[in-house]
Amino acid sequence: MLVIGERINATRRSIREAIKSRDMDAIVREAKSQIEAGANYLDVNCGTVDAAEEPAVMQWLAQGLQQAASAPLCIDSANPEALSAGLAVCRGPAMINSISAESERFSKVLPLITEYRADVVALCMDDKGIPPDSATAEKVGRDLVRRLLDAGVPADRIYVDPLVRSVATNPETVMGTLDLMQRLAGAFDGIHFVSGLSNVSFGLPERRHLNRAYVVMSVASGLDAVIMDPLDRTLQALIYAAEALANKDRFCMQYIGAYNEGKLSAP
Amino acid sequence: MLVIGERINATRRSIREAIKSRDMDAIVREAKSQIEAGANYLDVNCGTVDAAEEPAVMQWLAQGLQQAASAPLCIDSANPEALSAGLAVCRGPAMINSISAESERFSKVLPLITEYRADVVALCMDDKGIPPDSATAEKVGRDLVRRLLDAGVPADRIYVDPLVRSVATNPETVMGTLDLMQRLAGAFDGIHFVSGLSNVSFGLPERRHLNRAYVVMSVASGLDAVIMDPLDRTLQALIYAAEALANKDRFCMQYIGAYNEGKLSAP
Repeated sequence: MLVIGERINATRRSIREAIKSRDMDAIVREAKSQIEAGANYLDVNCGTVDAAEEPAVMQWLAQGLQQAASAPLCIDSANPEALSAGLAVCRGPAMINSISAESERFSKVLPLITEYRADVVALCMDDKGIPPDSATAEKVGRDLVRRLLDAGVPADRIYVDPLVRSVATNPETVMGTLDLMQRLAGAFDGIHFVSGLSNVSFGLPERRHLNRAYVVMSVASGLDAVIMDPLDRTLQALIYAAEALANKDRFCMQYIGAYNEGKLSAP
Repeated sequence: MLVIGERINATRRSIREAIKSRDMDAIVREAKSQIEAGANYLDVNCGTVDAAEEPAVMQWLAQGLQQAASAPLCIDSANPEALSAGLAVCRGPAMINSISAESERFSKVLPLITEYRADVVALCMDDKGIPPDSATAEKVGRDLVRRLLDAGVPADRIYVDPLVRSVATNPETVMGTLDLMQRLAGAFDGIHFVSGLSNVSFGLPERRHLNRAYVVMSVASGLDAVIMDPLDRTLQALIYAAEALANKDRFCMQYIGAYNEGKLSAP
């Protein structure tokens, strides 16, 4: 499982304040704690600052993190200029979060994928928004992946996000996304699947249980990357377990390795 | 989810000692703690006592539990005489654990199902043992369910156990059982699926993570009964979450109800 740490996000008050006072030490501490907890990538999102400032803030964040922390970045913005500003200072591999089949976003983000040879999160949505049913979602997903492949993006750089909704208002959403991942995996060899965890439990109490169960179910249907809080040790342990059960960890060597490193001690 | 409490089992030292000293108060305390924690049925297993004594011990256990505790029993033995002795003192619904396609077990347990109008755990195995691959398992499972239906057992009294093995030595076992449940559910309307949790994690450390992830994955493939320790509050919370995600808890009413009753407070 590729773990993309979600904690450097300006929707969080501590990050917003660190950005405001340009306190790179606080940002780097957040980065290091996530890497130590097992993050493979660090998501960086400053979408709550003034739109005009976002590219400069993103570049300041990416630059500081590149100098002080060892994990590659997942540059996360709806603004292609902010993506570009962040990518421009990344050394080595980076991930773009995100492209979609929305006309404007597709045309502006695609050149960045090519220019920076970046991995990319591909959201299953188009100009009509998030597809209303799983048949439409499959069509949108197929078209989007096909267009990325046709543009020369290698399959293994594409991380499709099936865009799960809140189960509180969309009872069929999870079974739909599991099915969508299985169908797209059957259609395109080598693509990846990624999901965030905040949507599925929106509006419900004690959300951690829903988020964790969602990841476990999704692993069995092909999810191999997740945008999450790597400091949730219970979730990390469940992911190791889920990958062993889904036959993605032959003879449980990673599970046993995690145990030997003390990573499975959550109650 | 039908929760079958597993704690009254003579493989546990405290139960073995309570049986030895005929301490029904200790047995009843174990029963009440499980019911309070959400058990719908109580499994009763005294298979470690002398074979000649097992029927009498089973009857003593079942009788005492029927008088003092409010949950129906799941009479658990490989010995048809012990099953019969336990069932004879059950009032109201009971479950038999278990029948299989093994010739002798099938012929001796089938009359008990009919006589006591009991629910029954149906193990996917025959005289050749646990099937070596999922195609064989499907065939054994189909034949077993078909023979039970032909004998007049209603579909909704049949709880098929796909007999998961240890993932440590059988990397494909969980994906195989998920597939098996889906195929049998497609072939037979109304049957249930049940699983115990001790096998899947056998031989691995920190087994609770594997057991929990296994239940969550299985819910998405049709598992609707589980033989478990109901005192594991983290597992209970994950089951409520998994059923909401799998669209088996419309608009999350049970999840929200569990929250209101304080059942989701596990960390």
